[in-house]
Amino acid sequence: MEKVATTKYVCEPFHADFSGHITLGVLGNHLLNCAGQHATARGFGMARLNQEDHTWVLSRMAIEFEELPRQYEQFEIDTWVENVYRLFTDRNFALRNCDGRIIGYARTVWAMIGMESRKPMDLEHLYDGLISSYAYPERECPIEKPGRIKVTAKEPSGTFVAHYSDIDVNGHVNSVRYIEHVMDLFSIDYLRQHRLHRFEIAYVSESYCGDKLHLFVDKDEDETYSVEVRQAVTEIPVCRCKLFMS
Amino acid sequence: MEKVATTKYVCEPFHADFSGHITLGVLGNHLLNCAGQHATARGFGMARLNQEDHTWVLSRMAIEFEELPRQYEQFEIDTWVENVYRLFTDRNFALRNCDGRIIGYARTVWAMIGMESRKPMDLEHLYDGLISSYAYPERECPIEKPGRIKVTAKEPSGTFVAHYSDIDVNGHVNSVRYIEHVMDLFSIDYLRQHRLHRFEIAYVSESYCGDKLHLFVDKDEDETYSVEVRQAVTEIPVCRCKLFMS
Repeated sequence: MEKVATTKYVCEPFHADFSGHITLGVLGNHLLNCAGQHATARGFGMARLNQEDHTWVLSRMAIEFEELPRQYEQFEIDTWVENVYRLFTDRNFALRNCDGRIIGYARTVWAMIGMESRKPMDLEHLYDGLISSYAYPERECPIEKPGRIKVTAKEPSGTFVAHYSDIDVNGHVNSVRYIEHVMDLFSIDYLRQHRLHRFEIAYVSESYCGDKLHLFVDKDEDETYSVEVRQAVTEIPVCRCKLFMS
Repeated sequence: MEKVATTKYVCEPFHADFSGHITLGVLGNHLLNCAGQHATARGFGMARLNQEDHTWVLSRMAIEFEELPRQYEQFEIDTWVENVYRLFTDRNFALRNCDGRIIGYARTVWAMIGMESRKPMDLEHLYDGLISSYAYPERECPIEKPGRIKVTAKEPSGTFVAHYSDIDVNGHVNSVRYIEHVMDLFSIDYLRQHRLHRFEIAYVSESYCGDKLHLFVDKDEDETYSVEVRQAVTEIPVCRCKLFMS
């Protein structure tokens, strides 16, 4: 089977933001679906993993783009596994617009854990090296890996309580909703005058329905923002994001 | 061209709620997309309308179901125009599960207005009667039409501020996000013990980014809830919903 899988999409009207471009949350959802389909077709998708009491855990994601698909635009996402290490695997993505031109890339880092044990699995040797057999480091992904994100702000810039619509089938706030809540820190006036060109997220711990979550924000040099989502009561970090605006 | 259009879907993992079923917001989004595709293919979609300075306005929607598609389940949505009147048109939907069995229906009511004038268009005679030529009242849709919704509560049960992720390309809170905010009034514990089987929404006025919105809730006999979303400052009603639980 091919190492790269390509999926076609159209930017639906309710998936476009005020500017007429796809929202980052919807794009993140598409990336994760592409990953799932690619893995399932090659025998290491969630359904098989769950049978064997394993599950994929998304650790980090970085999305970088020149532009984003517009309302009603057809676009494509390629995905492939770059590398498989013992505890992590890198999966990359390329985003092509309706003219077939690459307009962005994404990088993700995944681990696999035992559903009961919560212990990491050895990805290099799992399933007789199946995942490694799809590694395709030759395909370029010319964006930087997601880096460390540190936030020093002492006062939260925003707060939300996790509700029904945030929660996935595992009872956790879903990975995509954090992206939406972080984007909601910015006013439309600000977003009209600035362009997001890179977004990073690192998932640290789970949050649950009813949890009150604070968002702490550092504004770095230029228009770069680092955000930490933290449990309001216990102060446990949930995820960290970095947004590169211009 | 056929009067009925059918679109295939899969319930994506991030579109499933805590119970593993598709969320009502995502289902509503799919219904509205089916409507758009059906209309576009028949010459009365948004792109043509906008060229002629017209636009569709969704007035009401009712969704009723025995069950909802589950995570990873393939399902289909049929849509057709039931009737075309001077000021409104009824568009209906049927929802089929992976076995091809109908598990739900939906009804929507639409008007068309001039984008500048904001005045309603005569749908019966527009485009030489094009829309009427697709009317298909013979196809059954055995659920009740959306009714009048009245809410008398004096104190709000919930509040939200419209943010970036709520806003569509027209600068309005998008029709689907109201459904999500209304569903978020209910705790997962409540939703674990009760089953929603019908949802109605009537759109009254637009709201915008930064608007603070109150949700007023009446609990009627049994487990029926009427909800009014109202501007916190001006008290102008924005939309009303009715939820039939059991």
